[in-house]
Amino acid sequence: MCHHPADSILALNPRVKTHANLHSTASKKNEKKHWKRNPERSCDSCVNLENNFDDIKHTTLSERGALREALRCLKCADAPCQKSCPTNLDIKSFITSISSKNYYGAAKAILSSNPLGLTCGILCPTSDLCVGGCNLYASEEGPMNIGGLQQFATEVFSKMGIPQIRNPELPPAHKMLESYDNITIFERQKYIGGLSTAEIPQFRLPYEVVQFEIDLMKDLGVKVVLEKGLGQNGMTLTSLKEKGFQVVFVGIVLPQANRDKIFEGLTIEQGFYTSKDFLPLVAKASMCNCRSQLPKLHGNVIVLGAGDTAFDCVTSALRCGARRVFVVFRKGFNNIRAVPEEMEVAKEEKCEFLPFLSPREIVKKDGRVVGLCFCRTELADFIISAFGSMLNDPEVKKALEPVKLNAWGTPELNSETMQTSEPWVFAGGDIAGLANTTVESVNDGKQASWHIHKYIQSLHGNTVSTTPKLPLFHCAIDTVDISMEMCGIKFPNPFGLASAPPTTSTPMIRRAFEQGWGFALTKTFGLDKDLVTNVSPRIMRGTTSGHIFGPGQGSFLNIELISEKTAAYWCKSVAELKANFPQNIIIASIMCGYNQADWTELAKMAEESKADALELNLSCPHGMGERGMGLACGQDPELVRNICRWVRKATTIPFFANVTNIVDIARAAYGGGADGVTATNTVSGLMALKADATPWPGIGRGARTTYGGVSGNAIRPIALCAAIAKALPGFPILATGGIDSAESGLQFLHAGASVLQVCSAVQNQDFTVIEDYSLGLKALLYLKSIEELHNWDGQSPPTIRHQKGKPVPCVEELVGKVSISMASHFKKQNSLCADVDVIARALKHIGVYQKLDNTEQVKALVDPEMCINYGKCFMTCNDSGYQAIKFDPETHLPVIMDSCTGCTLCLSVCPIIDCIKMVTRTTPYVPKRGLPVNPVC
Amino acid sequence: MCHHPADSILALNPRVKTHANLHSTASKKNEKKHWKRNPERSCDSCVNLENNFDDIKHTTLSERGALREALRCLKCADAPCQKSCPTNLDIKSFITSISSKNYYGAAKAILSSNPLGLTCGILCPTSDLCVGGCNLYASEEGPMNIGGLQQFATEVFSKMGIPQIRNPELPPAHKMLESYDNITIFERQKYIGGLSTAEIPQFRLPYEVVQFEIDLMKDLGVKVVLEKGLGQNGMTLTSLKEKGFQVVFVGIVLPQANRDKIFEGLTIEQGFYTSKDFLPLVAKASMCNCRSQLPKLHGNVIVLGAGDTAFDCVTSALRCGARRVFVVFRKGFNNIRAVPEEMEVAKEEKCEFLPFLSPREIVKKDGRVVGLCFCRTELADFIISAFGSMLNDPEVKKALEPVKLNAWGTPELNSETMQTSEPWVFAGGDIAGLANTTVESVNDGKQASWHIHKYIQSLHGNTVSTTPKLPLFHCAIDTVDISMEMCGIKFPNPFGLASAPPTTSTPMIRRAFEQGWGFALTKTFGLDKDLVTNVSPRIMRGTTSGHIFGPGQGSFLNIELISEKTAAYWCKSVAELKANFPQNIIIASIMCGYNQADWTELAKMAEESKADALELNLSCPHGMGERGMGLACGQDPELVRNICRWVRKATTIPFFANVTNIVDIARAAYGGGADGVTATNTVSGLMALKADATPWPGIGRGARTTYGGVSGNAIRPIALCAAIAKALPGFPILATGGIDSAESGLQFLHAGASVLQVCSAVQNQDFTVIEDYSLGLKALLYLKSIEELHNWDGQSPPTIRHQKGKPVPCVEELVGKVSISMASHFKKQNSLCADVDVIARALKHIGVYQKLDNTEQVKALVDPEMCINYGKCFMTCNDSGYQAIKFDPETHLPVIMDSCTGCTLCLSVCPIIDCIKMVTRTTPYVPKRGLPVNPVC
Repeated sequence: MCHHPADSILALNPRVKTHANLHSTASKKNEKKHWKRNPERSCDSCVNLENNFDDIKHTTLSERGALREALRCLKCADAPCQKSCPTNLDIKSFITSISSKNYYGAAKAILSSNPLGLTCGILCPTSDLCVGGCNLYASEEGPMNIGGLQQFATEVFSKMGIPQIRNPELPPAHKMLESYDNITIFERQKYIGGLSTAEIPQFRLPYEVVQFEIDLMKDLGVKVVLEKGLGQNGMTLTSLKEKGFQVVFVGIVLPQANRDKIFEGLTIEQGFYTSKDFLPLVAKASMCNCRSQLPKLHGNVIVLGAGDTAFDCVTSALRCGARRVFVVFRKGFNNIRAVPEEMEVAKEEKCEFLPFLSPREIVKKDGRVVGLCFCRTELADFIISAFGSMLNDPEVKKALEPVKLNAWGTPELNSETMQTSEPWVFAGGDIAGLANTTVESVNDGKQASWHIHKYIQSLHGNTVSTTPKLPLFHCAIDTVDISMEMCGIKFPNPFGLASAPPTTSTPMIRRAFEQGWGFALTKTFGLDKDLVTNVSPRIMRGTTSGHIFGPGQGSFLNIELISEKTAAYWCKSVAELKANFPQNIIIASIMCGYNQADWTELAKMAEESKADALELNLSCPHGMGERGMGLACGQDPELVRNICRWVRKATTIPFFANVTNIVDIARAAYGGGADGVTATNTVSGLMALKADATPWPGIGRGARTTYGGVSGNAIRPIALCAAIAKALPGFPILATGGIDSAESGLQFLHAGASVLQVCSAVQNQDFTVIEDYSLGLKALLYLKSIEELHNWDGQSPPTIRHQKGKPVPCVEELVGKVSISMASHFKKQNSLCADVDVIARALKHIGVYQKLDNTEQVKALVDPEMCINYGKCFMTCNDSGYQAIKFDPETHLPVIMDSCTGCTLCLSVCPIIDCIKMVTRTTPYVPKRGLPVNPVC
Repeated sequence: MCHHPADSILALNPRVKTHANLHSTASKKNEKKHWKRNPERSCDSCVNLENNFDDIKHTTLSERGALREALRCLKCADAPCQKSCPTNLDIKSFITSISSKNYYGAAKAILSSNPLGLTCGILCPTSDLCVGGCNLYASEEGPMNIGGLQQFATEVFSKMGIPQIRNPELPPAHKMLESYDNITIFERQKYIGGLSTAEIPQFRLPYEVVQFEIDLMKDLGVKVVLEKGLGQNGMTLTSLKEKGFQVVFVGIVLPQANRDKIFEGLTIEQGFYTSKDFLPLVAKASMCNCRSQLPKLHGNVIVLGAGDTAFDCVTSALRCGARRVFVVFRKGFNNIRAVPEEMEVAKEEKCEFLPFLSPREIVKKDGRVVGLCFCRTELADFIISAFGSMLNDPEVKKALEPVKLNAWGTPELNSETMQTSEPWVFAGGDIAGLANTTVESVNDGKQASWHIHKYIQSLHGNTVSTTPKLPLFHCAIDTVDISMEMCGIKFPNPFGLASAPPTTSTPMIRRAFEQGWGFALTKTFGLDKDLVTNVSPRIMRGTTSGHIFGPGQGSFLNIELISEKTAAYWCKSVAELKANFPQNIIIASIMCGYNQADWTELAKMAEESKADALELNLSCPHGMGERGMGLACGQDPELVRNICRWVRKATTIPFFANVTNIVDIARAAYGGGADGVTATNTVSGLMALKADATPWPGIGRGARTTYGGVSGNAIRPIALCAAIAKALPGFPILATGGIDSAESGLQFLHAGASVLQVCSAVQNQDFTVIEDYSLGLKALLYLKSIEELHNWDGQSPPTIRHQKGKPVPCVEELVGKVSISMASHFKKQNSLCADVDVIARALKHIGVYQKLDNTEQVKALVDPEMCINYGKCFMTCNDSGYQAIKFDPETHLPVIMDSCTGCTLCLSVCPIIDCIKMVTRTTPYVPKRGLPVNPVC
């Protein structure tokens, strides 16, 4: 069997093995070194961290990573993650929004519960909080990276550059008590941010993050006065009260370091720092990017203590020049306070741990630290003590009068209301003694804010609801109008429930409207003589996206029939629903045999029930067809036209024919007088056969089945309704088939749909997804209006050119200088309306094949920076294409050759977003015909 | 808005938030404890490990976990994992097989390279080996769990109970040198297994595992003699030679423990063990399940050393009664030898680490150990030293004569051939000094085996190929015949390449045949007047399974046309291919307009080229239709019938019409004289629109597109060809549409297909997948014949009732007593043939809806043991069904109520396989009609 020449390109292409092969143990030990991706365990591979202030968080996610991670989340009922979050953040909801690429929706959920949502996404010791409760601990894939997702969503929102606003639905500010509009923060330092800026190193929490959150606060009118601290220049609680402040919230950090007696008198110059000396110096120097002002360390550094502050000292010390850092602590590994994540980073940076040791005596030489004696002596050039902090400044203590202090010198307080012994003084954070983390400090502030509200209202004789109700985060995106009009019917938003399991009963439709769904179709009902009884099992998991079980099934197959309930039930229900939800739209879905009398009777019944419109179900692909209904009628244009004529004659309200996505049938519905079509229904198919040849579902002992209806994302390419919209411009389309997000919904609107029906996505989750869809659509429409974000795709910023393990580019490089004029946004906010400029916008790009230009060709371009060297592009080009990619045996980098035909398969299988791009071909494309045209064969 | 009554069931169902809510920091600290899934960090939650011999490996995977993990694998070109494996295991291939549920295929790949594949899957320090090179280190999802997958596949194979056989294609044994059939292992102990049984604790490596691998070896005729060791009773190398053994391989472990001088004379009774004293006692007691014979420890135990053996001592000590274990080592954390995985387990079991300490003096009281003095004293009740091992037994040394020993007292050897100074003596493992791990010891043996082969051949004057060729693992499954006959054509196996990108050119088809594909269709070609030129981009990633990028795309969309190459090229190519691959089948795929002369000309050309058959492409859904070809002809039964008649008249070879999966068209092809159909082609659709309404693919500056063809798993439910098979019994079907494994291929065969065409799965990977498909089909057919495995689904054993964090049931509980009569297998092995008893086997289960029995109903049953408490069943039943599931607010366990209608949606969204089962309903099912039949509406 001869190999063709010029196949050196195929040298690394996989081949089926006919024999096992041989490599000696010794040679393998050597070879593996070249391919090792993880660090060598021996210290030879230590990286020099001096002056390296890159992000060191393990949890940071790119968009690709965030989408992949969000997909794993189970979105649990009564989710334990939320129960374990100090701010009670609705984590499931924000992850749902991330998985549908609705990053503003996620950020809104986060910032509504936690105004420092980005900081906490970065800093939270999540294994002790939200992640600790994750139900995925019980699965092999392990718990979610919640912090990383929180950081990702709020960071994308920060890049959108949209300010916070007061919810316009709240009473206008001038009608509210003055105290609501007159909030001042006094800050002792020259810059705001407290511990987040003063003591947490940049590589753990960049200053832009703090600034983003401060700006959101300032957007609401909070004033900030710098360089004024409690106990300084006569500022005391009493002096503030005298100036007219009705309430004071004390949120200072504990300012002084705990210091062991043996270190008394020791100075920085001698080589001794407390964490309160050391970390602010590091923070300040890295914040202003004046690396030269960093504390200069060298040689061996001992850090005493093993809390989180100690580990901040460790990682900072390495960046300040320490050669080797020892963490020394009094207890064992099983009793230290630090969270495992922090310790892990220190371990990776090759710091050493010395447990069960207490310092006994400083060893000095020429007045300078040279060692520390525990039981044995450890040589050291510097010592940093991180033994916690306290409040012992007499000026501050005095300024807190008349607030009662407890034995630890901090205010006595009610842990529910955060109120001190003085009703007008509240406290939170470090000084309150409850919070061990930033997120708990945030929650102290949030908790206090409600009780401050109650207190102020009580001063004015008002009572406040016993259930706390804090307003949600709000910005211009929330004000976008996404209502739609179709056939004279006004839809509050374009998202509704399809005639399907989510509308099995009236109470379900009722609950759906309460959650915000714009409209609902009833489950299809018929005349009593056509009543059905279902079989079971009947709704099946899709097998179309591999052996993945829950969540987010890519498809379902069902053999469920129309409603088991009577027409009478549905007509009564429609009447009740319309009475209770006059703003929401109800469409009665009906089905009969090919019989004018039946259609007339049923259509009239439904119209009398006050349904806003009717849907004629002419496309149910299973079960009903055999009775001469559903698809039995819907596949013949003549029957469709006649049924539509009968219904047109019987009723005056709009009606829509539910058809399969075939232009001829839509045309017949149009011809018969229908006001529009629902396209498409499920697609006929069989989902799975077991290895013993029995089907799933298999009914009864005989394990019998029939063709069912496939729904969900798998049918979206078939359902995208541009063909009907092109053929019948302006003819309303109620789209259905794989709509599972605002993003996919917008695709249907762009393809010509007017409103959007959902079923499988609700089956995959619950009714609350509507909030994500509505908000997501608002965000997509709003962002389109921001010129500075023209290079975003929807809510997705341009992909970061970054491979894990290579240096992270800085924010500016990534998104360009995004500095948006805020004023312009406020002008635009109400001019956006979904149905203008959205519906059918894609149609101009879609047409017959012959209109595509085969002289405008592209070819692939690989970004070696982003490549993870795995060579799928190379393999797929070899075995499914053109052998136009070389693959280097040493570097494993692919190189695209000029013989690339631009087919795009390489990009389609690449796991890294935007690693391969298709670029315009500069030379003409000449097809390889193999043999010249027309020789004798 | 009134809520309906009886809705207490909905109390925990999610609702859209209208306000942020409030929980004080103090109350949250308390609440989260109830939901914590990970262990508390304080020592209060320590579990008592005494006598707990459950599996402690982090990597162990259930089938669900294995499938999910295998799906993540990139299946890299030139994969670094293989390069980093001492036995050069083709890891990518075996993971490919796992992801297609071909567990025997995976086990074969593993055992072919590593006869101790299961042991090594369990024991390997993979982060230093295969995993260390994983390209996924460069992604957020992190590297693969290769050890877990290896363990899973070999364990499933072990449960199949199928013995190893000699490849029947090798020369018969009696024609080979005697030495090949006369191999004896001499074992010093009463039981075989060496270090694996004698020193590795059961909870790290169960004895069944060792026994499984020993049995495979014995299957090939290797003899074992127990209680005979080198240097015992006069057995020496020389005595063996005198007995006629031509070669000796010395694979003994180093038998004696290294012992520090300060421990001289100390005994077990005094509280001192070496690892060589301690571990064999643990292994022996746990192996025979005589827990009472375990060494009895208590109080504080010090383990000296920090290699892997030390950590085996740590985890064993806890199980022998130690209250607290300290690991004491001379160096820092950055210099110890143990692999991180081992250390991690010890850390989780709350052992303490004491770095930088060397033992100085034993502290004794009443002659018994009470402490060990380093620089400071550590109290201890027992000391276990794990300082490595050595060979110092003079009897053994003497027995090794005349082999030259090196300075360490072990044989001098050639590290490539494993040959000692005596050419007839080889060595490997501990004694050879190269291997640090079990897997390296295995490789030493494998390496030696080849050189022993060469050496023996040289004794007989034979030469051996310079490229080592070791036979692959073989069992009865490999002997199953999967050839097929259809229309008088014999297919070597039913898997072929569809007329698609993988058959773009002749060299590609050539390479595909070399890899084992049974047949190929040429890319469709036409007459020169119809030559096409493609546009680019044209092959798109599917968006049907969420925001996942490579590997294993669930679908593709393409707008590629037929071949750009001439008919002359293809005719010449077919002739060449048939000459070179007479066993393989080539089908020429052709297309013309609706014109008898054209079809006649092209069909005759193709027949003359010696194609085995023709395919008439009547279904290409894009581009060609506009030229009056492809689907333009294929949607009209009349045209299909005529084209078939024309071709029937023009040629004598079989031909098949490529049609969409519509029975009418298939009937027309049958009526026109076609010999069968290819069903289906891709399905017409649009894949995606970007947020700015431009389509993907967008051609040229105008970003124009057209409807393309959707392929891959997403269309499998549509493509499953039972409808045609039911309508036209016995009419051959060449199936296509989402065939990506033997398992899905078998579904098509069961649904009536004769042979199977593949494209998308090759686009997702490369031609080598054919090996997985062929072997997988053999395994599925073979396993069907094993009665004892009737409760397996294909290659999947029954699901283990196990949730992570709960006790693991023992193997017997899981699969029942699988003890298979081996003899029966050998009888069956050649009677299996794929086309008997497989094709169309599912059809009897498939029919019209009315044949399904709605009196045979099922309802859901939840297994609380397997439930991970996340409540998707509850939510989906509420919002897409029947409100028939209660969800306990404290335990988060669902309870199915009698109102369950058996719809099966809960099972379809549950992430845990078999946690929910559908069971026969014992009470009659009465539909809820809502209102009685026929009142006035």
